[in-house]
Amino acid sequence: MSTLDFFHRPASVAVVGASDDPEKIGGRPLRYMREFGYAGTVVAVNPKRDTVQGMPTVPRLEDSPVVPDVALVAVPGQAAVDAVRVAAELGVKGAIVMSSGFGETHTAEGLRMQEELLGHARSAGMRVVGPNSQGLASFHSGAVLGFSTLFTEEPPADGPVGIISQSGALASVPYGILRRRGIGVRYAHGTGNDLDVTAAELAAEAVLDPDLRLLLLYLEGVTDADSLVELGERSRQGGVPVVALVGGRSQSGSRAAASHTGALATERRVLDAFLERVGIWQVHSVKELVSASELYLQDWRPAGDGLAVVSNSGAVCVLAADAAEDAGLPLATLSESTVAGLKTELPAFAATANPVDVTAALLTDSGLFGRVLPVLGADPAVDACLLGIPVAGRGYDVERFARDAAAFAASGTPIVCAIPQPNVAAPFVEAGLPVFEEEASAVAALAQYLAHRRRMARADSLPRPAVGARAGEAAGPVAGALNEAQSLAALAELGVPVVAHELVPTVGEVVGAFDRLGAAQVVVKGSSPDATHKSELGLVRLRCASGEEAVAAAEEIASSAASHGVALDGFLVAPMVRGLHEGLVGASLDPVFGPVMLLGAGGVYVEATPDTQVLLAPCTLEEVHEAIGRLRMAPLLAGVRGEPAVDVDAWAKAVVRASEALADPTSEVAGFDANPLMLLEDGVVAVDAVVLRR
Amino acid sequence: MSTLDFFHRPASVAVVGASDDPEKIGGRPLRYMREFGYAGTVVAVNPKRDTVQGMPTVPRLEDSPVVPDVALVAVPGQAAVDAVRVAAELGVKGAIVMSSGFGETHTAEGLRMQEELLGHARSAGMRVVGPNSQGLASFHSGAVLGFSTLFTEEPPADGPVGIISQSGALASVPYGILRRRGIGVRYAHGTGNDLDVTAAELAAEAVLDPDLRLLLLYLEGVTDADSLVELGERSRQGGVPVVALVGGRSQSGSRAAASHTGALATERRVLDAFLERVGIWQVHSVKELVSASELYLQDWRPAGDGLAVVSNSGAVCVLAADAAEDAGLPLATLSESTVAGLKTELPAFAATANPVDVTAALLTDSGLFGRVLPVLGADPAVDACLLGIPVAGRGYDVERFARDAAAFAASGTPIVCAIPQPNVAAPFVEAGLPVFEEEASAVAALAQYLAHRRRMARADSLPRPAVGARAGEAAGPVAGALNEAQSLAALAELGVPVVAHELVPTVGEVVGAFDRLGAAQVVVKGSSPDATHKSELGLVRLRCASGEEAVAAAEEIASSAASHGVALDGFLVAPMVRGLHEGLVGASLDPVFGPVMLLGAGGVYVEATPDTQVLLAPCTLEEVHEAIGRLRMAPLLAGVRGEPAVDVDAWAKAVVRASEALADPTSEVAGFDANPLMLLEDGVVAVDAVVLRR
Repeated sequence: MSTLDFFHRPASVAVVGASDDPEKIGGRPLRYMREFGYAGTVVAVNPKRDTVQGMPTVPRLEDSPVVPDVALVAVPGQAAVDAVRVAAELGVKGAIVMSSGFGETHTAEGLRMQEELLGHARSAGMRVVGPNSQGLASFHSGAVLGFSTLFTEEPPADGPVGIISQSGALASVPYGILRRRGIGVRYAHGTGNDLDVTAAELAAEAVLDPDLRLLLLYLEGVTDADSLVELGERSRQGGVPVVALVGGRSQSGSRAAASHTGALATERRVLDAFLERVGIWQVHSVKELVSASELYLQDWRPAGDGLAVVSNSGAVCVLAADAAEDAGLPLATLSESTVAGLKTELPAFAATANPVDVTAALLTDSGLFGRVLPVLGADPAVDACLLGIPVAGRGYDVERFARDAAAFAASGTPIVCAIPQPNVAAPFVEAGLPVFEEEASAVAALAQYLAHRRRMARADSLPRPAVGARAGEAAGPVAGALNEAQSLAALAELGVPVVAHELVPTVGEVVGAFDRLGAAQVVVKGSSPDATHKSELGLVRLRCASGEEAVAAAEEIASSAASHGVALDGFLVAPMVRGLHEGLVGASLDPVFGPVMLLGAGGVYVEATPDTQVLLAPCTLEEVHEAIGRLRMAPLLAGVRGEPAVDVDAWAKAVVRASEALADPTSEVAGFDANPLMLLEDGVVAVDAVVLRR
Repeated sequence: MSTLDFFHRPASVAVVGASDDPEKIGGRPLRYMREFGYAGTVVAVNPKRDTVQGMPTVPRLEDSPVVPDVALVAVPGQAAVDAVRVAAELGVKGAIVMSSGFGETHTAEGLRMQEELLGHARSAGMRVVGPNSQGLASFHSGAVLGFSTLFTEEPPADGPVGIISQSGALASVPYGILRRRGIGVRYAHGTGNDLDVTAAELAAEAVLDPDLRLLLLYLEGVTDADSLVELGERSRQGGVPVVALVGGRSQSGSRAAASHTGALATERRVLDAFLERVGIWQVHSVKELVSASELYLQDWRPAGDGLAVVSNSGAVCVLAADAAEDAGLPLATLSESTVAGLKTELPAFAATANPVDVTAALLTDSGLFGRVLPVLGADPAVDACLLGIPVAGRGYDVERFARDAAAFAASGTPIVCAIPQPNVAAPFVEAGLPVFEEEASAVAALAQYLAHRRRMARADSLPRPAVGARAGEAAGPVAGALNEAQSLAALAELGVPVVAHELVPTVGEVVGAFDRLGAAQVVVKGSSPDATHKSELGLVRLRCASGEEAVAAAEEIASSAASHGVALDGFLVAPMVRGLHEGLVGASLDPVFGPVMLLGAGGVYVEATPDTQVLLAPCTLEEVHEAIGRLRMAPLLAGVRGEPAVDVDAWAKAVVRASEALADPTSEVAGFDANPLMLLEDGVVAVDAVVLRR
């Protein structure tokens, strides 16, 4: 068993600050454990009363008749710190500190108390959730060790969904939405300041639960990438999909998150790439967090993502097709035998291509759906169905429609329903089918479910991100940039082909370099580790066609450098290379996620009109090819309007080699930027490079 | 009064095919008119029964004691055609044909009957809704002239929203959703095949209703642009916003729409530009069609779009800020006095920047919202508020929160609420406030409401699109493309600056042209109206630096043309002009919307990686500047990395001039394509052009 299971199924719990009032923070957990069936030992700690809520108390935690698995701390400020100290000394496995007034206040005193609290726990090896935690609620064991008021408003029922959130509100809100939709929830945790145990670590514990089918996660910023890697791996092994909402995407949201939980700002695209890499599905709102839940709880085995749409309304067919394109789901092209099968089932004027419009004939032929769905399901191109019933009611055999749809769903093919009328939807919901008010929501949820399955399968084939290996380095010292020649040499060592070149220390030696390189035209650059935008500073001269031109260029460069106060350590001379297109490859160390690769369109406009993709290192050839395919410039790479294709594979291989080098924990390279990377018909070559060393 | 009001408030209605069965298509309207308070004369036409549903009948429409305003036709096929003929002969103002089996079946017989039906109506000046119409339902007059079953499932209540839809289902679905949300609906029309009266024409009638506050429109394709222009104008004049969902955006959706209603395919971006131009807000799903309805029904007077967020949850503050950025709503920067005001109202640890986190202090201080909201509302930077209450319930004075929010809303500043718990939301809904389950939906609806108001105000300042003037021409004959020299001349006449050039008939005369142009370098092109992609065919030679080079180039071009079978009518010689960037401007005649302008990034990659914007002609300078600002290339135009800025104004003026020329009904130009349009530091110049003439 993993190390945090005692939080979910403690044999005994002490409540420090146990209250007689079942509405108080120190009273609610006692009431909840009693009402929701906790069978372990509960110790109520209260120095002022002999009993609380009918239970006997002990005056101090030290007086507890047992060493509890968990100490739940509901006393404020220094008293909470002291309770943690005592718990640690007693050998308690874990404390949950619900008290607020710590790091989240951004006050010196709050931070000091928080550090002291952590010190006590660490010295004894005790784990701590919080402070400022709403508590952990586990409904399979009845260990509801928290104070969310929602458990009285929306009665709990143990079930297949876990909700783990840094924010108490964001544990409660999805809990409430799911419970109102009739879905059982096993865990509803609000972890708070994540001083020791993080939400991600608890999530990695929760997905080990063999009964769990879906985990919803809310984070504000990510500090604990290792736990997320572990969460992703366990999620895939156990087949428990994880859907994550990470607040603070926007500039103002990120500021608000920093103010709310002190979240670290990491580049958002890196987080996006990371979550994709480990198979966690990222959403951007609470609505999206919960929208596909019913789909994840099915036992479906979709083979692909070909969608068939069936409705008794032509307009719903049209809108579902639009929604499918929006969501990236292809409409299945039906086989001839499927169309023939539909023609035998449907009236002559019905649409038997996909979408299938069964028309108002449904009113007089209640078995239509029951006959049409299996015909569609038998078509190998159909991997999922949408059933749209915008109007029905009196005169329609709605119960039969629901039975037929449920029978189809039981065959293993996903089906989502778009049914706005609550009375028509009721038997479908009753049958356990996912029902949405309209087709666009249904299609979006289906698309998420299908894509998430693919992403999880895909994540299994990818190397583990190197977060553990090098993430810490990002905060460490960087020795600084190498000069251009050193950078080109370092880049070549990383596996990125570089242009032939010579670095000469003086203007006069430029002519010799020109002769030795033997190129028709050369570029001359002032070499300096200080200047990054060389062109603007007049430190680059292109197309020098003779030794004299090259020397003259070097002289101009020297004078430009002098006028801008840039110290030159020589002149780099290299043959002019023009690519069919200009790409770029770069790398950096993210403070949370370690080595990160950047690739995209290169040239001087990369900041003004960026067209780049981010990948975690190390990355695979397939990943890089896909990332290149997502670039806006991608259509150009195959060659348009008579141009030859560029050697995309050479580009991709260079990215992969560099990513593997960066992921090596012994690497001394802290980042690099090769722009432009000339994309040739045969190969690629970096003509400009900056490499940063630790 | 407009000409179609009799459909909404007929003095008398004859039902042809009146049924005794109140569930039949011919029986439901009788029942609905009786139950929903229709006070006019109803004539039931039934040759087989003396009474239906207790009403006396007449055997034939000819026997009606009055000439009814509206004949509602519920008999099938040819009988419906005959009924229309009789109604037309009697002088009936309008017929609503609910019968199906006409054009929508795509059968010869269906189309023939439809044409005959239309002929009868046209010959007498009678208007026809349908066939294949679900009918028109007007709840202020009780004239429910349709058979939607939903009116029995969800009882009607007259109110401020009109729903007009080509599809019966898409009239019923929004009706049901709004009614379940407690919103009154005045019109719920399903128009069907739109043979004569279109949904757009009825919508333009409906927005004249002084009690209407919001009109929802569903179309499948657009044929009736003139009515939409009129709808837009009346909508703005009357202050009745129109929200439109146009099915068939996607390729497969468009195919499904063609099969469903025979919708014409027009380029979707043209439709998008058109709707924006006339101030109609376009949505892409049923969910979006109805989501902001509650906001439109308020009497708010927002001055801008600065958003303030208030919540008792820090996480909701974070997520609302993220959602605001997604929706394009700026978070208001609060003034110092506002922050000072907040500090006096809030506990020390609360966040007094925007978003405002009032923290759990709300539990003990029920007046917090009531004090904080006015402080925010008094800040000139705050134009709208979001109030997020993710958790409340027992212990909270929710009624007071709702009263305080309602008082704030009554002051004229928009406020939306994100409240997931139904019992907490209830008093807010009761108070007439827009309540959403979570913050992202609330922010999206608010953003739509605010942007739609701006779009309507903006549309008033724009010229009327030239749809009426030239739309019909698109289907007419095009004389074909002009050759390059003629095209450049025609383009100059349209007001687009063109490069100096000479067209010479023979290779030998190229040298003279070179000398006369006096440029350091020229381009030589084979002139032909047939070849569009000249570069691939070897018909273009750049950078000829002498007369000899130019002649040699012409010789190569002649031989390339011969080998590709392209007939040349001469050689065009022009100075080499290189822009700082390459743009394009073009125009075409859309079959529905008339003259349409295209502008964007030019060059040879315009098809492979398009970066273009569409505008309706004629367009204003401001519109063109905004459209240029939306281009991906826009950041380059101001000059990046030391480059000079291009003359965007010259580009915009050229587009405006050409748009005005194209919008002139006497114009002989059917379209043109100037690519590249060289964007210079001073001015723009087209170096390549194809112009199409009628």
